[in-house]
Amino acid sequence: MRVGIVGGTGKLGSGLALRWTRAGHTIAIGSRDGGKARAHAAELAKSGCAAEGGDNAWAAREGEVVVLTVPYEAHGQTVRAIAEAVAGKVLVDVTVPLKPPKVSRVQLPAGQAAALETQALVGASTPVIAALHHVSATHLADLARGIECDVLVAGDDARAKALTLGLVRDLGARALDAGPLVNAIALESLTPVLIHLNRTYKSHGAGVVFTDLPGADQS
Amino acid sequence: MRVGIVGGTGKLGSGLALRWTRAGHTIAIGSRDGGKARAHAAELAKSGCAAEGGDNAWAAREGEVVVLTVPYEAHGQTVRAIAEAVAGKVLVDVTVPLKPPKVSRVQLPAGQAAALETQALVGASTPVIAALHHVSATHLADLARGIECDVLVAGDDARAKALTLGLVRDLGARALDAGPLVNAIALESLTPVLIHLNRTYKSHGAGVVFTDLPGADQS
Repeated sequence: MRVGIVGGTGKLGSGLALRWTRAGHTIAIGSRDGGKARAHAAELAKSGCAAEGGDNAWAAREGEVVVLTVPYEAHGQTVRAIAEAVAGKVLVDVTVPLKPPKVSRVQLPAGQAAALETQALVGASTPVIAALHHVSATHLADLARGIECDVLVAGDDARAKALTLGLVRDLGARALDAGPLVNAIALESLTPVLIHLNRTYKSHGAGVVFTDLPGADQS
Repeated sequence: MRVGIVGGTGKLGSGLALRWTRAGHTIAIGSRDGGKARAHAAELAKSGCAAEGGDNAWAAREGEVVVLTVPYEAHGQTVRAIAEAVAGKVLVDVTVPLKPPKVSRVQLPAGQAAALETQALVGASTPVIAALHHVSATHLADLARGIECDVLVAGDDARAKALTLGLVRDLGARALDAGPLVNAIALESLTPVLIHLNRTYKSHGAGVVFTDLPGADQS
């Protein structure tokens, strides 16, 4: 499958691109600055990554599924910039509404969750899925390492959710159905708590694992 | 220490009372119906539990620390009923703002979190701590069983938080500092997700554990 990663030149985008390449997918990395994304993709290609680069709207057009990983301050503007290109596709929103400098405290956005704001902006014909808020970008980029973190996947569209659960499993992580899109409020607001745990307990990649789920695959 | 448990006649209250007795604490169990709480405490006492019962205001007066475990629909009314009795004490709020029948979807209350609403009602001189939202009441009441769930503890008052972290460890659980009280939004909203996981993956007590925290005690 061809995956577009909007805002894909960061550490998280790199980790996703490397792991999805390993699973047989190809990647279109987007950035506000298309030249930067092309240079980044060329760099990743040296490690065997099946990535090309371009601007965000290009990546959104290229992807059969589109993953959005931008800082919250660029979120609304980016969603508007790609709205036409993602129409009807699955849009996986990884955005966490952090507001620096107080990134270890929950600060709910006006729409209660970034993913809910995204859904309102792109309209009902484009299913939005919230996922991948908790996996450490550092761990993700280290292919030799297993992912010690479950990935919660929330969304209202069953087909879009099933596709996303599969893509998460392709990363090598356990994917869990976390319920309807409104539960993105819980997923997004857990990230400031993880940042607080990292600071308090001297970690660079605290993760979250759910126990006692007999019906879930143990990946 | 003497612990008051307001709304303590449910399964969660029983589990807390049994485990805190084992750690050397004594328990004042409260209920809106004082007679019901006295009968419940008498029943627990047969299992060696150091519990007495009375109405909620009595339990709040008796406790050096007071734990609030009521359904959200009774939350505001109960906090008002005990506000005078808890003045200046540590108030641990376990309330999750579930609104039946849709208990597996996040439904934020007007004040964003029950614990924030509690703090607003009792005033700044009574420190409110949010904790214990995720431990399965069934697991808690089974003393032979370890607790496969970390307990996140959020609050703004350092002394109150330290006291609560200690009480959680006395239950036999790992206690983690989850940051300021506003992070109760994340803690409370994770519970509907756990309910969704229970239903989807056929569990009666999904828990949550945080990984890669080198500075935290492994309990």
